[in-house]
Amino acid sequence: MIILGIDPGYGLVGYGILEKNGGDIRAVDFGCISTPKDKKLSERLEIISQCIHILIDKYKPDEMAIEKLFFNKNITTGIPVAQARGVIVLAAQERGIPIYQYTPQNIKMAITGMGNADKKQMQFMVKTILGLKEAPKPDDAADALAVAICHSQTNLQMSGQI
Amino acid sequence: MIILGIDPGYGLVGYGILEKNGGDIRAVDFGCISTPKDKKLSERLEIISQCIHILIDKYKPDEMAIEKLFFNKNITTGIPVAQARGVIVLAAQERGIPIYQYTPQNIKMAITGMGNADKKQMQFMVKTILGLKEAPKPDDAADALAVAICHSQTNLQMSGQI
Repeated sequence: MIILGIDPGYGLVGYGILEKNGGDIRAVDFGCISTPKDKKLSERLEIISQCIHILIDKYKPDEMAIEKLFFNKNITTGIPVAQARGVIVLAAQERGIPIYQYTPQNIKMAITGMGNADKKQMQFMVKTILGLKEAPKPDDAADALAVAICHSQTNLQMSGQI
Repeated sequence: MIILGIDPGYGLVGYGILEKNGGDIRAVDFGCISTPKDKKLSERLEIISQCIHILIDKYKPDEMAIEKLFFNKNITTGIPVAQARGVIVLAAQERGIPIYQYTPQNIKMAITGMGNADKKQMQFMVKTILGLKEAPKPDDAADALAVAICHSQTNLQMSGQI
């Protein structure tokens, strides 16, 4: 099974492609979609949409896992991220791919066994679980692999399809 | 010139189609896109995207005007609205339509001359400006017509293209 993990963002969208065979998982690809700051919102959303379609068409994931958004403060900067997340979810839906969401706590717990793990612990465990020589860079790609690993380890009946 | 006005939402998206000829404006159509509460987020976003494409293909607007989002509190309920707005902006971008955004204050000022006008004043003025027999229903459709009227009266150099 191929899983596409997404760390939603506006300037940077992290992605991670995992292949799961029984209990084994391996990273097929990971990286970031970046959108130029000097482009309009509409153009940046279109870039994100097109890149997600390209990733889906290239790797043909069976399922997508994406982080749930929370904004406790500074929601004004959060609005573009939420708009981008809508476009990402739509792209997967248009390709008929089931989408599952996880909270940051779900993901940290699945990767490290601790719901309050910090970024370094997360990156160390993503590297270790996937047998990588170095922690995936940038952080957004590591976060996307983390949500994909979380999904690969989760009983689907326990997770939230969106 | 045809203007598509949008009141962004998740359960209900208001739309209003205006035709502007010189100083005259008239309402061509208005209404709401509603998305079923029992459907998943991905399905509801897809319905919104498809309906915006249908509206654009039917009325061939030259420009789209959409309300800017603000969330001072209760951002958790605002996240789905922002996700839907991303999908709406993308749909217009995919059809090559320039998109302009206005704050609620911009719109109230353009329609009533008062940046703090209440809903009743706004509905009365939308009805009067467009020469309608009754205030447009539901409220979301009236709000969408209001942003389209605001755009029709605005010097484009003064407005924010997104």
